[in-house]
Amino acid sequence: MSSVIEKWHRIVEKQDAKGLDELLADEVIFHSPVVHTPQVGKRITSLYLAAAMQTLNAPGHFKYLREVVDGNNAVLEFQTEIDGITINGIDMIQWNDAGQIIDFKVMVRPLKAVNAIHAAMGRMLEAMKPKG
Amino acid sequence: MSSVIEKWHRIVEKQDAKGLDELLADEVIFHSPVVHTPQVGKRITSLYLAAAMQTLNAPGHFKYLREVVDGNNAVLEFQTEIDGITINGIDMIQWNDAGQIIDFKVMVRPLKAVNAIHAAMGRMLEAMKPKG
Repeated sequence: MSSVIEKWHRIVEKQDAKGLDELLADEVIFHSPVVHTPQVGKRITSLYLAAAMQTLNAPGHFKYLREVVDGNNAVLEFQTEIDGITINGIDMIQWNDAGQIIDFKVMVRPLKAVNAIHAAMGRMLEAMKPKG
Repeated sequence: MSSVIEKWHRIVEKQDAKGLDELLADEVIFHSPVVHTPQVGKRITSLYLAAAMQTLNAPGHFKYLREVVDGNNAVLEFQTEIDGITINGIDMIQWNDAGQIIDFKVMVRPLKAVNAIHAAMGRMLEAMKPKG
């Protein structure tokens, strides 16, 4: 398995924000399953990935299924549950030769799952906003 | 590139129903981007893939982007447009050692694209129903 993907798995297991920061390139682009417009840069990508980890990694539900790794690209299929709705999705990850992630794309199915993530991510990003 | 994926590309280019029939295993399972329940068997999978090819392959719009191939699995990222809405998606394909597809999963993003496919596939499957 690629060392980038090994590191990613450790970050997900430990919800490791510092490890995530080191694994992302400054110019990383995040593509949400809900919204068309890409999010550019490490700061906003970290925010989205942290929110996604908290939203999707429901204890006892989240697990990775297939891993398809080819050169500097990987697709990790996952399954989880939000609000009783089964989510099947992928993390599509691309990295540079320095081993830093430069592109992170998430897709989910079926339609109900996209709607559930839309609602849950909205709540999570709202809660993570700096207060005051 | 895998010979299964080469064959798949030729089928898509030529909208080749006979080639598709030969490439699918009898027990193939299709997973739609819209509906949770898997569709089991060659007959229903052929129907869905033919409808998807007609729906998604809008001339001048459809193109494959990344290909991630690993063992008996491949993920083909594509981009297209339906009713003016940009669709970004993947075909996630698994085959057996005989070179026949046993699992075909489609996911698309963003949310607008899932809704557009839901509407377009519904119209297409209705139109393809045997009449009378």
